[in-house]
Amino acid sequence: MATQSVLTPQNEDFPRWYQDVVAKAEMADNGPVRGTMVIRPYGWAIWERMQAEMDARIKEAGVQNAYFPLFIPLSYFQREAEHVEGFSPELAIVTHAGGEELAEPIVVRPTSETVIGEYMAKWIQSYRDLPLLLNQWSNVVRWELRPRLFLRSSEFLWQEGHTAHASYEDANAFATKIHLEVYNDFLVNVLAAPTYLGIKPASERFAGAINSMTAEGMMRDGKALQMATSHELGQNFARAFDIYFQSEAGQAELCFTTSWGASTRMVGGLIMMHGDDQGLVVPPRLAPIQAVVIAVRDEPEVNEACGRVAASLKAAGVRVQIDRGRGSFGRRVTDWEIKGVPLRVEVGPRDLKDGVVSLVRRDNAEKLTLGLDEVSVKAPGLLEEMQADLLAGATTRLTDATHDVENIDEAIEAAETGFARLDWSKVGVSGEAALKVHAITVRCLQRRDATMPLAETEPDLDCIVAKSY
Amino acid sequence: MATQSVLTPQNEDFPRWYQDVVAKAEMADNGPVRGTMVIRPYGWAIWERMQAEMDARIKEAGVQNAYFPLFIPLSYFQREAEHVEGFSPELAIVTHAGGEELAEPIVVRPTSETVIGEYMAKWIQSYRDLPLLLNQWSNVVRWELRPRLFLRSSEFLWQEGHTAHASYEDANAFATKIHLEVYNDFLVNVLAAPTYLGIKPASERFAGAINSMTAEGMMRDGKALQMATSHELGQNFARAFDIYFQSEAGQAELCFTTSWGASTRMVGGLIMMHGDDQGLVVPPRLAPIQAVVIAVRDEPEVNEACGRVAASLKAAGVRVQIDRGRGSFGRRVTDWEIKGVPLRVEVGPRDLKDGVVSLVRRDNAEKLTLGLDEVSVKAPGLLEEMQADLLAGATTRLTDATHDVENIDEAIEAAETGFARLDWSKVGVSGEAALKVHAITVRCLQRRDATMPLAETEPDLDCIVAKSY
Repeated sequence: MATQSVLTPQNEDFPRWYQDVVAKAEMADNGPVRGTMVIRPYGWAIWERMQAEMDARIKEAGVQNAYFPLFIPLSYFQREAEHVEGFSPELAIVTHAGGEELAEPIVVRPTSETVIGEYMAKWIQSYRDLPLLLNQWSNVVRWELRPRLFLRSSEFLWQEGHTAHASYEDANAFATKIHLEVYNDFLVNVLAAPTYLGIKPASERFAGAINSMTAEGMMRDGKALQMATSHELGQNFARAFDIYFQSEAGQAELCFTTSWGASTRMVGGLIMMHGDDQGLVVPPRLAPIQAVVIAVRDEPEVNEACGRVAASLKAAGVRVQIDRGRGSFGRRVTDWEIKGVPLRVEVGPRDLKDGVVSLVRRDNAEKLTLGLDEVSVKAPGLLEEMQADLLAGATTRLTDATHDVENIDEAIEAAETGFARLDWSKVGVSGEAALKVHAITVRCLQRRDATMPLAETEPDLDCIVAKSY
Repeated sequence: MATQSVLTPQNEDFPRWYQDVVAKAEMADNGPVRGTMVIRPYGWAIWERMQAEMDARIKEAGVQNAYFPLFIPLSYFQREAEHVEGFSPELAIVTHAGGEELAEPIVVRPTSETVIGEYMAKWIQSYRDLPLLLNQWSNVVRWELRPRLFLRSSEFLWQEGHTAHASYEDANAFATKIHLEVYNDFLVNVLAAPTYLGIKPASERFAGAINSMTAEGMMRDGKALQMATSHELGQNFARAFDIYFQSEAGQAELCFTTSWGASTRMVGGLIMMHGDDQGLVVPPRLAPIQAVVIAVRDEPEVNEACGRVAASLKAAGVRVQIDRGRGSFGRRVTDWEIKGVPLRVEVGPRDLKDGVVSLVRRDNAEKLTLGLDEVSVKAPGLLEEMQADLLAGATTRLTDATHDVENIDEAIEAAETGFARLDWSKVGVSGEAALKVHAITVRCLQRRDATMPLAETEPDLDCIVAKSY
């Protein structure tokens, strides 16, 4: 059944399409303070699933969760010069509490880097305490003048991992492991999101980092979104926060630290990578609701059949919800399409007489007519097929819209509709400046075989350039 | 094996014992800003387990999670007169952000009551939208001048549930359901924490509530701790935030709302309810580590046997960790005792020659000698036994230290060592004032059969009075 879209078409106005989806899929609302957001139950359920999947991988990597305070003394931001430069215009400052003006202003954390550094210094004594592998799930605040729900908000939610190691090699290996086995594994295998893995050029690095790894995804308008990032901080932060350890030889040595994060921006990435003119499309492995069983009409036999089908789907391990037949069927179908639920089972009184129901896939609108008992037999396979198809589709779009080019001018042209790939030696600092005029940035540097280099100084690197969120 | 305690004994100085446990079990540290706390990995793992258990029950009750902003305009706190009176001295205020002074100061949420009220008003149109059942897990800030880790901190973590209903009866029934099926079920069956369930007298109610339900636990020093609380807000908040719905008859009617919360204070309650002179005692169903397998010495056969025992425990569904034999055995045993891990499996080279290991229960120090393959067979049953014994022990302590008394003077005496129970009609407002002089409060009102009354105005109520945290 062709349903008329209630959203602005993507190719008419992509930003408005995005806004429409966020509102009509009931993902989020603007908060009362400018730049803040209210994450509504459906948006939250998706973030909760992202958290669960990433958290399991983070724990599997041997990392322990902990929690550090929201409030950080302003003086902490003055210890690491590059760090404070990276953050100061974005800080929100508490000056009054307990009915009094505070002696020292307090910063609402923009990241917990500094305070975690402070405690690492306390907790690490000897090489036996290393590696120290910590992670925290929390809210952070970075004042945002041009807010956009999920993509740029003054408060956002994220996880930030912070680790300390005895050597450069160990820190590099661990940051790489997180990048590949936590982030990219989640992105590819759960979010069905193909990415370009690489490192940032010096100009785009996290303040204070010696190396920033990134996973860049392509949105349906051809722009890039950084999906997750892992930083090697060398000994910079350890030096600023006195994170020393006693080596096996009894020497006091500085640690090497890493940090890595993924945030609610990823929800924006999900929307823009897989969404279409009918709304959100949620990959089955991520979906909080994998199948919705819809009663065409509010009649006892129909509702009874819905309950039976839903129970069999649940028993087959499918996350399922029932939509009892209150209100217009067509409108409810449209609403579930906008929410991007992978499978729709439509149970109508006429079909029921023949003992069948309709099953519709959200991504390609393919419709099957199945016996009541067949639904739960077919559904798990269909979900896996859809998962694979979404990844394949997004991979094709990424590949097709990535243009190998020879020079800056061609890169600028290619970035109008997608990504450009070119020899990094043909870009450099001056090339970056020329691109910036057109709001294009170097998203990442890769080896010729598309793997991540250890450093920008490696020979024979490509760069991926694009406009970005 | 008798291990010498490294903690201040409880009966010597209970507050210092508490501080010692929090520090030596590596639960938490003070944060750099006064009153804030760093929750260390072991403390966080316990809170994460509390969250998981409560969250599952909250979802089972049909509630959806969502997220509301950290920042709330100051003006929101001026709408509901009683609410602002309840909070204003505790507020932390952001006056600067984005490098500028803000036109309107922002409050760092002390609760999200006001902002959730605002959005409920937007989202609720008709009786079909009711009940609206929301919950949020978040951090909140209430400035604390006499901070104490977990018990009173300027920032703490909690869940706050907020629901809107079409009638008083429905709101009352739902708040009661949450109180019994979420909180008390978790407290009794997971935390092994017996409680007195009741309602607060008017003087102790949440600002703006028409009724506050509480679950009061007894700490090992005889003082009370409010473990969780559920409020009926009547139509007070709905009126302040214009939360109306169109009834089936087409009339605009005010909603009835509820709110309910449990926080990281509960971790403090866990410590003080079950802890002993050797440290924390974590009930098995809650414990993030249910059994630790300790290598007496760092030898290959010992470590190999540890791995084998741990794998068999894991396969039996036990949450297990291995402590390889680095450092003094005695000291490691003491550390695991302080952390309150329910079962300790000690694997020594001498015992191994006989094919046996020692298994020690944390709560009663009972030691069994078991064959290697027997450990995973016995452990699940022992964990359930310990769970039941902890609840029985805490129940006996609660019952023994609750004294039925006839008047205020006897109540004051009883509250030196525990709780007093007396006829509420013998206390009243003047009695409350007399108790307050001795830092004693009415913890809750109960019916004679220990169930929760609907309101303070019911006849024949008892009150439980005690000193409290």
